[in-house]
Amino acid sequence: MAEPAIPALPPGSTIGILGGGQLGRMLALAAARLGLECHIYAPEADSCAFDVVRHATLAEYDDEPALERFARACDVITYEFENVPAATANFLARRKPVRPDPQVLALTQDRLVEKDFIAALSIATAPYAAVDSGGNIAEAVAKIGLPAVLKTRRLGYDGKGQRMIGRDDDPAEAFRSLGSVPCILEGFVPFEREISVVAARSSQGEVVAFDVTENEHRHHILKISRAPARISDVMAEEAQHMAETIASAFGYVGVLAVEMFALANGAGRRVLVNEIAPRVHNSGHWTIDGASVSQFEQHIRAVAGWPLGHPVRHGRVEMTNLIGAEVNDYPRWLTEPGTSVHLYGKGEPRPGRKMGHVTRVFGEG
Amino acid sequence: MAEPAIPALPPGSTIGILGGGQLGRMLALAAARLGLECHIYAPEADSCAFDVVRHATLAEYDDEPALERFARACDVITYEFENVPAATANFLARRKPVRPDPQVLALTQDRLVEKDFIAALSIATAPYAAVDSGGNIAEAVAKIGLPAVLKTRRLGYDGKGQRMIGRDDDPAEAFRSLGSVPCILEGFVPFEREISVVAARSSQGEVVAFDVTENEHRHHILKISRAPARISDVMAEEAQHMAETIASAFGYVGVLAVEMFALANGAGRRVLVNEIAPRVHNSGHWTIDGASVSQFEQHIRAVAGWPLGHPVRHGRVEMTNLIGAEVNDYPRWLTEPGTSVHLYGKGEPRPGRKMGHVTRVFGEG
Repeated sequence: MAEPAIPALPPGSTIGILGGGQLGRMLALAAARLGLECHIYAPEADSCAFDVVRHATLAEYDDEPALERFARACDVITYEFENVPAATANFLARRKPVRPDPQVLALTQDRLVEKDFIAALSIATAPYAAVDSGGNIAEAVAKIGLPAVLKTRRLGYDGKGQRMIGRDDDPAEAFRSLGSVPCILEGFVPFEREISVVAARSSQGEVVAFDVTENEHRHHILKISRAPARISDVMAEEAQHMAETIASAFGYVGVLAVEMFALANGAGRRVLVNEIAPRVHNSGHWTIDGASVSQFEQHIRAVAGWPLGHPVRHGRVEMTNLIGAEVNDYPRWLTEPGTSVHLYGKGEPRPGRKMGHVTRVFGEG
Repeated sequence: MAEPAIPALPPGSTIGILGGGQLGRMLALAAARLGLECHIYAPEADSCAFDVVRHATLAEYDDEPALERFARACDVITYEFENVPAATANFLARRKPVRPDPQVLALTQDRLVEKDFIAALSIATAPYAAVDSGGNIAEAVAKIGLPAVLKTRRLGYDGKGQRMIGRDDDPAEAFRSLGSVPCILEGFVPFEREISVVAARSSQGEVVAFDVTENEHRHHILKISRAPARISDVMAEEAQHMAETIASAFGYVGVLAVEMFALANGAGRRVLVNEIAPRVHNSGHWTIDGASVSQFEQHIRAVAGWPLGHPVRHGRVEMTNLIGAEVNDYPRWLTEPGTSVHLYGKGEPRPGRKMGHVTRVFGEG
């Protein structure tokens, strides 16, 4: 999948972004700092990324005339979410460079294919087994054991499309509750911490990883990220190395995030890869205010064929998501010393919806 | 000129900005972080601020139907430059809140009126004398002495509209070279450093000043700003106090910058006010990457009726302007560790034109 190095786009060029959520919005804001324009393409009229760009297309992902015009208006195209339909990505890739390569989407849209890919790189994951639509779940349980987590192979995020199966639960019922679609059963990992590495890879093949981030979830949604993670230097290097290996194996151009489990495994400690997000990631939001170059800017630089930055972290950083009605607390955060507030312009604070985040930088490294 | 406290605008509100340059652009980017929208109004089709907003008006400042529509589209109106025509500001102020109050514009648009205002606050300035269009320059020279600086009362910036008059120069010739318009003659101040204070005042009357910045000019254009300035704590407090006094005397709402001279005056040290910019200011650009809340965000918060932030500086900060063809060096800056690069999307790098800036944060405070 490796691409040849690409010529850098000049300032003033236009980057097309598929998807109009907060990630697209923050990508567009990062591009603007660099004198690059973004054109947002999204099917939802209330897409919050529309508000921060001059040019936008409101159309469905299968609207070929709209995609055609979008491709003509852009110099390069990227995306803010991994579930871009393959047909959309391929249609655009025949017209303009799409980065990262749409083949990466295909691979990461299927949890089983993704896990097989990671395993083929000799990178550790939780034990896993395929569950086909025929429902060979008993076989998978026999192989993996319980407790385990059953996940749909496609279209899961923020805890959607997954079910924990305990020793007393009925695996067949869990499978049916997920719609009897193809799944993957993953052994439950008694992890000590959830961590992630956000890394950028340029079209020249340079990889720059941010410091390992430690993540705290509530109800399967990221709540707090802290950088650096409270893990040993050896583990941190191992985690960053895994992310770099994955980015390079993909021939990836842009930012990706690798979610991992840090295990306390008896006397030893290990890192397992949980999943890959082929895009900027919530656990990298701290880089906007906590580092000299953000994950959003690194992504923009990479897809524009520009050199990556070499970010320096400003201190110990903590990012807290404002989820649903929590956003109504923003006036309190506004006056908190040393705190940076981000509101995504999303309108109604529905439960579970990511409405904004706050970042605090503390003096020590 | 004091305003009553105003209700805070809800997220999603629209702030109108008169002026489409890099200051308007960075204001709009700061507003976007807070979930607020901006509508840019500017008469130049290639205004770089147009690129980062959804809504913009391309029209002259005396186009009343366009101003009328603009006022209807905005919840509050502000400006990015001090030479907004008074008629424009007043036309808009009859329709929507304009912040800061247009009376401040009238005052700071005239160097003589501004100096008289400062002097009335018992704040020290360089000695000055009015030169009317009749050309009573000899009188002014007799009062102030030479060397001195002759400045037009109106429309000067970046060294435009001013002439140094040395002991061997002909003052009358200098006056004619500036077009024989009303001027102010200012005594030359043998300053040790040029410094500035960027301060925000909220509609509730709270004033928050950034750390004093030390500025280095080349050819009358700001080249480098460093924060904190290398002055004593006592001088820094004096400088901040002067800015706060000025902001409060104006009943100001928004960010202003006060340019000052730090003098080494024999054994003593003194601060003199040079001029006031009733807007965000180039010497405050370091706050984007060097502090938890930027000058642009403080201005947006103030005009939206939001509480001000309490910014914490991330370290010692240095901001360098990229002027004219210097911007062509941006690829070198992109890979400099710990460096944040800003390009304003201005197209042709004409000599003297501010094209971008870079900020570096160093570890120590």
